[in-house]
Amino acid sequence: MKTDSPVTWVKINSWNDNLLESKNDLLAVEEPLQIKLQFGKGEAWKEKALTVTMRTPGHDFELATGFLLAENIIQKRDDIQLIRYCKKVKPEEKGNVLIVKLDPSVEFDPTSLDRQFLTNSSCGICGKSAIDSISTLGVKMEPGIPKIKSELFSLLNKRLLEVQVGFKYTGGMHAAALFSSNGELLILREDVGRHNAFDKVVGAALENDIMPLDQHLVMLSGRISFELVQKSIKAGIPILVAVGAPSSLAVSMAEEKGITLIGFLKSGSFNIYSGKERVLFPD
Amino acid sequence: MKTDSPVTWVKINSWNDNLLESKNDLLAVEEPLQIKLQFGKGEAWKEKALTVTMRTPGHDFELATGFLLAENIIQKRDDIQLIRYCKKVKPEEKGNVLIVKLDPSVEFDPTSLDRQFLTNSSCGICGKSAIDSISTLGVKMEPGIPKIKSELFSLLNKRLLEVQVGFKYTGGMHAAALFSSNGELLILREDVGRHNAFDKVVGAALENDIMPLDQHLVMLSGRISFELVQKSIKAGIPILVAVGAPSSLAVSMAEEKGITLIGFLKSGSFNIYSGKERVLFPD
Repeated sequence: MKTDSPVTWVKINSWNDNLLESKNDLLAVEEPLQIKLQFGKGEAWKEKALTVTMRTPGHDFELATGFLLAENIIQKRDDIQLIRYCKKVKPEEKGNVLIVKLDPSVEFDPTSLDRQFLTNSSCGICGKSAIDSISTLGVKMEPGIPKIKSELFSLLNKRLLEVQVGFKYTGGMHAAALFSSNGELLILREDVGRHNAFDKVVGAALENDIMPLDQHLVMLSGRISFELVQKSIKAGIPILVAVGAPSSLAVSMAEEKGITLIGFLKSGSFNIYSGKERVLFPD
Repeated sequence: MKTDSPVTWVKINSWNDNLLESKNDLLAVEEPLQIKLQFGKGEAWKEKALTVTMRTPGHDFELATGFLLAENIIQKRDDIQLIRYCKKVKPEEKGNVLIVKLDPSVEFDPTSLDRQFLTNSSCGICGKSAIDSISTLGVKMEPGIPKIKSELFSLLNKRLLEVQVGFKYTGGMHAAALFSSNGELLILREDVGRHNAFDKVVGAALENDIMPLDQHLVMLSGRISFELVQKSIKAGIPILVAVGAPSSLAVSMAEEKGITLIGFLKSGSFNIYSGKERVLFPD
């Protein structure tokens, strides 16, 4: 059921001090928000789909208002005549599409925008359509392959910290690393953007012909967003491990596509959010 | 001088245990990378500006390759015929514009992209043009106003941790908070995206008519990117404080626009990257 709560419960498996425990865990909700802009005077008003941002639901009107100010589309609160949720959407997209009507006095040139927008990948306006739209993408994940011993995961964390030189010197870089199923570090890339670091790893695997990646895993220094799971699926990487937390949409997508998702990796403990069958525990 | 190094030295002031020290600090480099796509057969090939991403220079070809795979534009390495840096750019944009030529066998429909891309704000292809393009944006920052006592900053950190409920329960949410110059918490917002959290804070300030924000400061739970400084300038907020590290471009822009930028805030210590005159130290 779709709610507007910023957090949501999921069932996870927690591995801690050689003990596997099934428990409930709270995740940050991640859902797309599309902002549509209505502008112009009288009958001649127009509509433009402005942006889609992956956000935590709540305070959406504020988000739109702040975004429009940052983008120099409005200068003050009164430049917005009305903000409302779009009603003409599929049930599952409800609450994920906002319409902002600019005051007729505001001059807005839609052609001024296209050049100055950064893009990131995404595929839909609700979590469900986002998941549906990548159904045809990526190679098929073989269930339960590869198997990774639980004790190996703790070593990955140590290994990543040893080689994150950019992070060591700046404290301001993310890392993504490709490991073989026996824990050998194959590729490490660092970047201010964690999505970039992931893209660089996959690009390096392609350029060095380390494909397919169905016997491999990727470890991330930060949190796991929906987009990182999407990139993992597209690259055919069955296991994604992170120091940080996954979002709600990251977990839904990982479950749907058979990805093993592991978060909060520390020495001796981690949480399994999906795909537990790939982890081998000691007898 | 523009280099391709992933890190760069800056002069900072470090406040630690009641001692102010000028020293050199390494920052992660953040620069925009534009990816242009050439596609089609024979004489009928076309070009499309695909995306601009804020990235750390280095491994740019891999970044483009991985990005194109994630976006389903290529399926394998051989779908790319050639990658090169664009030579027809301004000197300061050199190394920031990539051209990827798809193999003529690849079917690519440019109209399929527009709907599925997320957008974030940005303003140019090199750091300099990014900074230039926001010259006219935002209210003018009054130098040296407001003044904030050094001991107040340590309290901000403690205060933020107390109220970050979403983070406390999920470990997966960023926070942005608006404080008055005497340390009163006015607005707190949490989100899976730190840019969203910042937009929500500014939107809430607009909606609640807490404007102008020239006597205020914003504290962030994460790192400081160029975009966050840009949002701060546009909202007229003179002081930006963060638990994490700033990027190179964040510092350049803050210096240029007279923003006080403080990072690595801990209890009793912080680094000042720009705008030191707004911090009052004990005699």
